Amino acid sequence: MSNFDYDLFVIGGGSGGVRAARLAAGLGKKVAIAEEYRFGGTCVIRGCVPKKLFVYASQFSEHFEDACGYGWQVGESSFDWKTLIANKDQEIDRLEGLYRRGLETAGAEIISSRAELTGPNSVLIKATGQVVSAERILIAVGGSANPHVALPGHELCITSNEAFHLEELPKAIVIAGGGYIAAEFANIFHGLGVETTLIYRGQEILSRFDQDMRRGLHKAMEEKGIRILLHEVFEKIERGPDGRLIAHTSAGKALAVDQVMLALGRDPNTRGLGLEAAGVKTGHKGEVLIDEFSRTNVESIYAVGDVTDRVQLTPVAIHEAMCLIDTIYRDRPTSPDHDMIATSVFSQPEIGTVGLSEEAAAKEYDELEIYRAEFRPMKATLSGRPEKTIMKLVVNASDRKVVGAHILGHDAGELAQILGIVLKAGCTKDDFDRTMAVHPTASEELVTMYQPTYRVKGGERV
Amino acid sequence: MSNFDYDLFVIGGGSGGVRAARLAAGLGKKVAIAEEYRFGGTCVIRGCVPKKLFVYASQFSEHFEDACGYGWQVGESSFDWKTLIANKDQEIDRLEGLYRRGLETAGAEIISSRAELTGPNSVLIKATGQVVSAERILIAVGGSANPHVALPGHELCITSNEAFHLEELPKAIVIAGGGYIAAEFANIFHGLGVETTLIYRGQEILSRFDQDMRRGLHKAMEEKGIRILLHEVFEKIERGPDGRLIAHTSAGKALAVDQVMLALGRDPNTRGLGLEAAGVKTGHKGEVLIDEFSRTNVESIYAVGDVTDRVQLTPVAIHEAMCLIDTIYRDRPTSPDHDMIATSVFSQPEIGTVGLSEEAAAKEYDELEIYRAEFRPMKATLSGRPEKTIMKLVVNASDRKVVGAHILGHDAGELAQILGIVLKAGCTKDDFDRTMAVHPTASEELVTMYQPTYRVKGGERV
Repeated sequence: MSNFDYDLFVIGGGSGGVRAARLAAGLGKKVAIAEEYRFGGTCVIRGCVPKKLFVYASQFSEHFEDACGYGWQVGESSFDWKTLIANKDQEIDRLEGLYRRGLETAGAEIISSRAELTGPNSVLIKATGQVVSAERILIAVGGSANPHVALPGHELCITSNEAFHLEELPKAIVIAGGGYIAAEFANIFHGLGVETTLIYRGQEILSRFDQDMRRGLHKAMEEKGIRILLHEVFEKIERGPDGRLIAHTSAGKALAVDQVMLALGRDPNTRGLGLEAAGVKTGHKGEVLIDEFSRTNVESIYAVGDVTDRVQLTPVAIHEAMCLIDTIYRDRPTSPDHDMIATSVFSQPEIGTVGLSEEAAAKEYDELEIYRAEFRPMKATLSGRPEKTIMKLVVNASDRKVVGAHILGHDAGELAQILGIVLKAGCTKDDFDRTMAVHPTASEELVTMYQPTYRVKGGERV
Repeated sequence: MSNFDYDLFVIGGGSGGVRAARLAAGLGKKVAIAEEYRFGGTCVIRGCVPKKLFVYASQFSEHFEDACGYGWQVGESSFDWKTLIANKDQEIDRLEGLYRRGLETAGAEIISSRAELTGPNSVLIKATGQVVSAERILIAVGGSANPHVALPGHELCITSNEAFHLEELPKAIVIAGGGYIAAEFANIFHGLGVETTLIYRGQEILSRFDQDMRRGLHKAMEEKGIRILLHEVFEKIERGPDGRLIAHTSAGKALAVDQVMLALGRDPNTRGLGLEAAGVKTGHKGEVLIDEFSRTNVESIYAVGDVTDRVQLTPVAIHEAMCLIDTIYRDRPTSPDHDMIATSVFSQPEIGTVGLSEEAAAKEYDELEIYRAEFRPMKATLSGRPEKTIMKLVVNASDRKVVGAHILGHDAGELAQILGIVLKAGCTKDDFDRTMAVHPTASEELVTMYQPTYRVKGGERV
């Protein structure tokens, strides 16, 4: 122990900060972790977890419909938003408690206050005005939804933050954005009976995903009754005389809705954090600039998670935190591995994906084999639901390595997790072919596509 | 073309026979395929496919219950068995049509008749009395449920065959057997509201599966309300004065039920097939004995699928058929690969498994690392359902290879399919550890179990 109050002071009690604090404390370091709001971060408090609970809630209307073809008669159903919110909040409380207890058990000091840097080794605890010193400081303050302040009437809009706490379920909503948050919430609200519109400036939702996933989800969402406006943005939001909102779009439309939600990306939470005082450099979005070991330009200060704007995912923040602890406290310099990250969009249908899209792979490899299956999932035969599952493998023809795997359909996220192992391990299409099918499953399609659907040579489909 | 009527005569229109006939015909061979009942075999007509449709049907009651915690109020629901049967039959008709059309398109001749061997190159078509000749004959007649003729009253019992066509849903059923068919049907009937008892002579259901899967499923089924009797068998079945059945057990119980179902294994369908006339040797269960290229002792006669009693699974029969065609018509002698077959039990919860159980691995390897997670799936937090998911990896400590992977929980079959690729490719635990989690999923547990739960050395847990 040096002259500092703490060995490690962590600012931010989200996934990355909590993991770093717990591990460091578990190694006997004197650790404090400051959180101004609630422990658990975006993921637990207003992201992944409540979002997935909402997804579950929004799927029941389809379960009720699907039952009929299987011989069930289901009575009238109704949905109470307040019950969902209350039960969701109770679960979030429970999870926050687990996070706090994990920190306490490990021996970290919990500081329920905003904390700001005042120098390379000093932190101001806002609630008490106290300034404490630390040998090392970890910035793990995450990010927050872009409020789009340039939009007239943006103050009338909500973001995903407020979506988790609305007093009542809107009758109609318009959501701006083409990313996974926009797609997920559009499906959630639609499933709960809300008249839902998605508006996105680009030419197709979910840029950077494989085209088949993008078009497939778009089509499926429209078939369900979600309206999707492309090449279109908000020009102005205003409150109408009846109290509802009117969203004026660049195409001259005026959409009358009860809520307008902005899902236009997320910004690093660095404003007012004292980075200048400590001399920490940031990038153009305000993100903390770090090297491959999560070190900032100031020797004593590190950063992990969304605030660094590398890959904004919970497991990535946790991984970065674990690597950091290995690097600074275990004498095992470990650089986070951001390659081949499987991920999921919890839309309905779900997307699960790992590796390169066909489009990206076509730029990287001379020749690709594309294996693609589109089929009606078995459950839909009796339910009569007009849904399609798409499974797609992108294979580098020269060495047969599977460089991309993409699924649109039920449990795609679960499947992507295990495909992540397969692709990370560098498995080839032959490894798929050698595998016996499990029947009847949807994923058996992945191991029974013996011939390429088509090839891509020099970037062109042949 | 030789002096024979056909190049290949296939007896049996199930998964193996149809695939072989289609492929051979596609290669320009003159092919006939005889089926006495319906094309599609056990899988399509009275196995995997209708079974899975029944599984879907039986899950809705839980969906209705789960909805409540998510804010839904669901009116009274009722289930009509006849609707399910009719819709299921319609789907099976559709699939049978696809099988027939696939054969026709490939150019195989369809013979709707029982066929029996009369010699090494001759077949009797029972419907016409005609005897035809073939250069090669493939026996692919499958198997059928053991009727347990030694049981007094066995003629009052049903098997899975009849379960797909019952006139009405029983109020109470007892199912004898401890295999996957018994477990699946117990869950199906229970989910449809039937008072369900399982009776099995062994000490735990699903012998040869991993103990955690066996105990975990047993516990989950009992918690749902399925009664499980172990170390107990039927002594006698009789019809009571009220028309119901009474099943007398070895423990002196008398179970009054509406149906008694026997799920006591399946026997090869070789009786009366003319194997003696052709000189084809069979084993003690009546299975056709074959070598590693699916050749019988008679040079012109081959057998694939359940009739050979190797591994009774649809994809295995198909694989054997594909290997056979490679061997006899493509000059690529190919032996079916029965190693590391992933499989699933469509119980509720589902089991997905590939590779060795802990028990089997302990006999094969000096030291094992066992990674085991048991957790409540996220959906169950708000639904309040007291279910647990179990995920387990069996790792050979010396080379870190994952030699077994076992999952009890939602979509375990889908997950096992992709884990099949992972294990078949020989991936190590390090490959799992290197993979980024997909959050929130259940399967992320598979890549975040960093420390062994326990070790097994010399067969003992340490």
